[in-house]
Amino acid sequence: MENTRLRRDPVSLRWVVISPSRAELPFPGLPVRPPGVPAEACPFCPGNEAKAGPEIHVEREPGSPANGRGWWVRVVADKYPILHIEGGLEKSAEGMYDSMNAIGAHEILVETPEHDQHWAALEVLQLDRILRACQQRSVDLRNDPRFRHVIWVKNHGLPTSLFQHQHSHIVASPFVPPAIEEELRGFGTYVRWKERCVLCDVVKQECAVGHRIILQEGTVLAFSPFAPRFPYETWIVPTDHAHDFGATRTAVLRDLARALQGIVTRIRHLLNDPPYTLVLHSSPLGEFTREEYHWHLELVPRPPQVLGLEWGTGIYINPIPPEVAAERLRQAVR
Amino acid sequence: MENTRLRRDPVSLRWVVISPSRAELPFPGLPVRPPGVPAEACPFCPGNEAKAGPEIHVEREPGSPANGRGWWVRVVADKYPILHIEGGLEKSAEGMYDSMNAIGAHEILVETPEHDQHWAALEVLQLDRILRACQQRSVDLRNDPRFRHVIWVKNHGLPTSLFQHQHSHIVASPFVPPAIEEELRGFGTYVRWKERCVLCDVVKQECAVGHRIILQEGTVLAFSPFAPRFPYETWIVPTDHAHDFGATRTAVLRDLARALQGIVTRIRHLLNDPPYTLVLHSSPLGEFTREEYHWHLELVPRPPQVLGLEWGTGIYINPIPPEVAAERLRQAVR
Repeated sequence: MENTRLRRDPVSLRWVVISPSRAELPFPGLPVRPPGVPAEACPFCPGNEAKAGPEIHVEREPGSPANGRGWWVRVVADKYPILHIEGGLEKSAEGMYDSMNAIGAHEILVETPEHDQHWAALEVLQLDRILRACQQRSVDLRNDPRFRHVIWVKNHGLPTSLFQHQHSHIVASPFVPPAIEEELRGFGTYVRWKERCVLCDVVKQECAVGHRIILQEGTVLAFSPFAPRFPYETWIVPTDHAHDFGATRTAVLRDLARALQGIVTRIRHLLNDPPYTLVLHSSPLGEFTREEYHWHLELVPRPPQVLGLEWGTGIYINPIPPEVAAERLRQAVR
Repeated sequence: MENTRLRRDPVSLRWVVISPSRAELPFPGLPVRPPGVPAEACPFCPGNEAKAGPEIHVEREPGSPANGRGWWVRVVADKYPILHIEGGLEKSAEGMYDSMNAIGAHEILVETPEHDQHWAALEVLQLDRILRACQQRSVDLRNDPRFRHVIWVKNHGLPTSLFQHQHSHIVASPFVPPAIEEELRGFGTYVRWKERCVLCDVVKQECAVGHRIILQEGTVLAFSPFAPRFPYETWIVPTDHAHDFGATRTAVLRDLARALQGIVTRIRHLLNDPPYTLVLHSSPLGEFTREEYHWHLELVPRPPQVLGLEWGTGIYINPIPPEVAAERLRQAVR
C-alpha cells in the first residue's frame, strides 16, 4: 500500500490528499425517497406529453406526430427553470457589485419513454440518442448571443427529484460555470507553457502507464484521474483533441455511448447503485471559445461520508487511490 | 419581492443565482448522531489529558500543571491527521504529474473543558481564548518553511465526529487551500485594477447601504455577502485592512469574539441549531504572503437541500436574498 501523498490535478491545479490509510466507508446505496409521481401522472411518460410542454427537440419514430407518442428522447423546457429564457441581460452595477437578469435556458432531456427504466440499463443505442440530443441542443443554443456556455448535468438517484422517470438537465448560461472556469485556467497555463493540450498529454500518459484506465471504446477513454477528489471519480475523454462537444462526429458519440454504458454499469454493480452526478465539460461558446480546451465527461459518485474539512476549504481527502478504484471498476463487470 | 437575478461575488468572481421565487426549505436541526464518547472516556475532558496527548499550546489557570487539569483551551496533535508532521516534502514527478508527501500539521483545538457545552453558549471570554489560540498556532506554525498556509476550521454539529466535546481543527499545509487560491485571484485582479483591497471596498459599501449588515462590534463587521452561495452564509470581517490573522491586535480579537458570539447565537436560534462550518480565511505565509488579502471568517450553515446542479458545475442557486437573511438574523436575538 502506498503512503499518503498529495497529488496535483494537472487540469484544475488542485492538490488532493490521497490517503489509503483512512477508512473507506461503504456506499449505502440509493437513498430512501418518497414515492415519485406514478406513471399515469408522470409528465415524462408517453401519452402525457402535454403535461411536460412542447418538445424543443425530439427523436421519434418516423411518421409519429409531434408532441405525441412515438418518441425515444424528448427535450422540453423546465417548468421551474433556474435561468429564464425571456428578456435581456440588463447588466448593472449596484455600487461596486455586478448583477444581471438570470437569463438562460434550462431544458429537461427526457431520456427514455419507459417510466421505470434504470439509467444503467439503457441500451447503447438509447445513450447515443441522449448524447445526440445534448449535441443538438448545444448547437442550437449557441445561436443565442446571450449565452456563453451550455452544460449537461445528469443527477442519478438524488432523493430530491420529484420525478423518478429518467431525465437530465441542459443549462445554457450567460456566464461560464465555475467548474469550467477553473479548468480553463489549467488548460490556459499549460498551453502557454507547453504549447500542448494538458488533457491530450493526460490521455497519452494514461495509455502509456495503463493502471488507471477502466476501459476504452474506440476513440474514447475512461479512467480514474491521477488526483481525484472523490472515491471512484471517473473521467470519460475522447482521445483526439476536440474543444467543442457540439462538433463531435457521430462515430465518436457512439464510442462515448459505449464507454458511458460500461462505466455506469460498473459503478452500479461495484458501489451498490450509488447516487452520482455526470457533467459534460465543454468549451465556452462564441467569442469565449477556447480551442485548447478538451471536452469530456466527469462522473462523480456522491461520497458516502459527510464533507468535513473539504467543505469551505477545498482540501479534499480521498481514501481510495485511483489505481485501486480503476482496478476495482475494471473487474466490476456483471 | 425582487426578481431572480445573477449576482457576482467580487472576491471569488463567481456568479450566483439569487432566486427568491424558489421554495425555501426549513432547516431540520442537528442531525441524529450516535451517542458520542462519554465524559469519562473523552480525551478532551479534564483529567483525561494523557489520552489526547501533550499540549502544543494551552491557556490555563496560573500555577496549574502542564498536561493536567486547570486549562481553558488546549491544542494537541490530531491522532488521525490528514497531513503528517514528520518528513520532507519529497516533491516528485510521475510522468507529467506532480506529487509530494502529505506533510503538514493537523492539530485539534479543544475549545472548552466542559464536555456538554454548546458552542453557541460559550462566553465571549472563552471565544476570545479560542481565537487567541488560533492566532498563536498560526504564528508558531509559520516558522516551519514547509508550510504555505494555516487554516482554522470549526464544524458544528456534524454527525461524523466521534467527539461531541467542542473542538476545531488547525491545519498547516504545504499548498494554499483552493478556497483561498480562488480568493487570491479576486484580490489580485482588483488591486491591479483599482489599487485598493476589494474587501475594504466591500466593507465601506456595506456600511454605506446597511441592509446586509447583521451586526457590528467595534472594528469587526458581520454581514450577509452580496452574492452568497448558500442561505445565511455570513462573513465576519475586520473593518481595517489586515492580510494576516496572525498579526491581529488583542482589541480586534476581542471584537471578533463578540461578533462571532452574536452570529452563532442568531444562527442557532433562527435556524433550529443547524450544522455549520466556520473557516478562517487568511493570507498565505512567508514568501507567498499577499498583502492585498484581507483576512476574515466565513460561516456557512449546511444547506437543508441536497446539492443538485451545484454539485459538479459550481452554479449555485440560493433562494434567500442576503438582504432577507440579514434582516432575519438581525431580529433573531433571543
